[in-house]
Amino acid sequence: MRIGIAGYGNIGRGVEAAVTQAADMELVGVFTRRDPASLETVTGAPVYGYDEMTEMREDIDVVIICAGSATDLPWMTPELAGIFNTIDSFDNHAKIPEHFANVDKAAKAGGKVGIISCGWDPGYFSLARIYAEAALPEGNSYTFWGRGVSQGHSDAIRRIEGVADARQYTVPVEAALERVRSGENPVFTARDMHLRDCYVVAEEGADKAAIEEDIKTMPNYFEPYDTKVSFVTQEELNSEHSGLPHGGRVLRSGCTGLDYEFNNTIEYTLNLDSNPFFTASILVAAARAAYRMNSEGQSGAKTLFDVPPAYLSTQPSEELLAHML
Amino acid sequence: MRIGIAGYGNIGRGVEAAVTQAADMELVGVFTRRDPASLETVTGAPVYGYDEMTEMREDIDVVIICAGSATDLPWMTPELAGIFNTIDSFDNHAKIPEHFANVDKAAKAGGKVGIISCGWDPGYFSLARIYAEAALPEGNSYTFWGRGVSQGHSDAIRRIEGVADARQYTVPVEAALERVRSGENPVFTARDMHLRDCYVVAEEGADKAAIEEDIKTMPNYFEPYDTKVSFVTQEELNSEHSGLPHGGRVLRSGCTGLDYEFNNTIEYTLNLDSNPFFTASILVAAARAAYRMNSEGQSGAKTLFDVPPAYLSTQPSEELLAHML
Repeated sequence: MRIGIAGYGNIGRGVEAAVTQAADMELVGVFTRRDPASLETVTGAPVYGYDEMTEMREDIDVVIICAGSATDLPWMTPELAGIFNTIDSFDNHAKIPEHFANVDKAAKAGGKVGIISCGWDPGYFSLARIYAEAALPEGNSYTFWGRGVSQGHSDAIRRIEGVADARQYTVPVEAALERVRSGENPVFTARDMHLRDCYVVAEEGADKAAIEEDIKTMPNYFEPYDTKVSFVTQEELNSEHSGLPHGGRVLRSGCTGLDYEFNNTIEYTLNLDSNPFFTASILVAAARAAYRMNSEGQSGAKTLFDVPPAYLSTQPSEELLAHML
Repeated sequence: MRIGIAGYGNIGRGVEAAVTQAADMELVGVFTRRDPASLETVTGAPVYGYDEMTEMREDIDVVIICAGSATDLPWMTPELAGIFNTIDSFDNHAKIPEHFANVDKAAKAGGKVGIISCGWDPGYFSLARIYAEAALPEGNSYTFWGRGVSQGHSDAIRRIEGVADARQYTVPVEAALERVRSGENPVFTARDMHLRDCYVVAEEGADKAAIEEDIKTMPNYFEPYDTKVSFVTQEELNSEHSGLPHGGRVLRSGCTGLDYEFNNTIEYTLNLDSNPFFTASILVAAARAAYRMNSEGQSGAKTLFDVPPAYLSTQPSEELLAHML
């Protein structure tokens, strides 16, 4: 499979690494809207301008789009999905139906497969939810995130006056996890499930008390949670908080039996040293599936819900039956 | 969907409960090789002789076969797969390729779909393994079972001279779990991962020391493990150990990054009050998928690796996109 990467941020670099390591894939190149001459890839893979991609349509089987959900993917995936099999990690949950419809129209017109929202949430967490609910239709599902860096929340702090830099960790509340595991089927507020742990570098002479107050009262982002604010130096932030670890858990608690007499819990946990590199790894597995589904004659928008799991694997069916099942 | 149940043990009763609760399914009846008049179902569902099933082929969309892997499923699933869409929970891992081939031949000839080895291992644990390996191709997978009742090991103890009854729990070794979670990628012996906890009722006058020795030295079943034996009265066994709880964990520890510099762990955990009723619940979800795949024109043997997860769910695509993804 010949793979193109559109966009070269953290996820693009993760895809570059994962494609390079995949024996069944070849990396055609990275496509960027920046000046290609200004960009050097980690592996030395060639860099092209974004607009050159279309001319290379015969050389690329799948384009993995590594761009942001807020402003890029809503137009970029539909634009590319008519020309290439595509993969994206669109993660704006509220707008998924609209994005799906736009990609579906383009991909069907072009006879290509576009798998959207591949990653871990949406993505592998969604899979954990659908399988758990299929087995335990009577019950409740819970998603906990962290401990991990939320880039959206970190950015929100950085926009506050007097803040030079910041890093925010989303932290699941252990007591809430225990209540779910016990089969209690609790109803939670946002505050019950997560707390927000912030490391902030203040500009020289800034009013730290005011910054702390601005963070803790910020609607949606921090106000609904218990929030902890620690001021650190830029050096400390760089040395202790430069990674992008993340993870989380999907739990379902549900009953079986004619009188719903048997309790069951299903728990799916991720612990990731690097959020973007794990996301990239899933995008690459999804690219394999898109190529196979399109080779079979399928087209249109898909999600991981539509993908038979065997299509993600490098192993042949006989191997899967004999050793993985 | 009109469902038939072939066989009426613990799993058959679990399927009866789950089908009764599924709004999109109707239970046609239970088919038994016993005298139908001798069997009363929990819900009052009609009971027919096994041989009557074929005559009712027009009334049944999917047959869920609830019979044993050792001697029944190897002939029963191929026999029925040519006539009905079928689901089974064949769990003899070493013989899965052979069973798949037999079911495939019959199901293709009859134009039906037969999904084999649905349950949680093989089944949901297999799904946990394939998804984890697709995302983390560089790494190691581990499966831990328990704490839960192993019926095979309980039966093995019951066959020992002087034993009136027994119940064996398979117990995962917590220290081994911790080593996997740490990213150490350990290589384990059987003894490292599980211990075996046995509750035994001795016959009056039996030599308990001899029984304990017979258990602990039994090849394959107990000799490779640390085994604990407790003698209890039949009353204690009945009151404290009559359930069939089970569960376990699939873990994968693997690296991402060009130099494999990022560690990641994925952990999938089941805690089940009733092993057969949870297995039954998965069989019922798989029946939904078999019906849909066959309605689309597919035929032949399948496993959960071949089933798009959306096919297991009662929810329509729009609902899945808007709320589950």
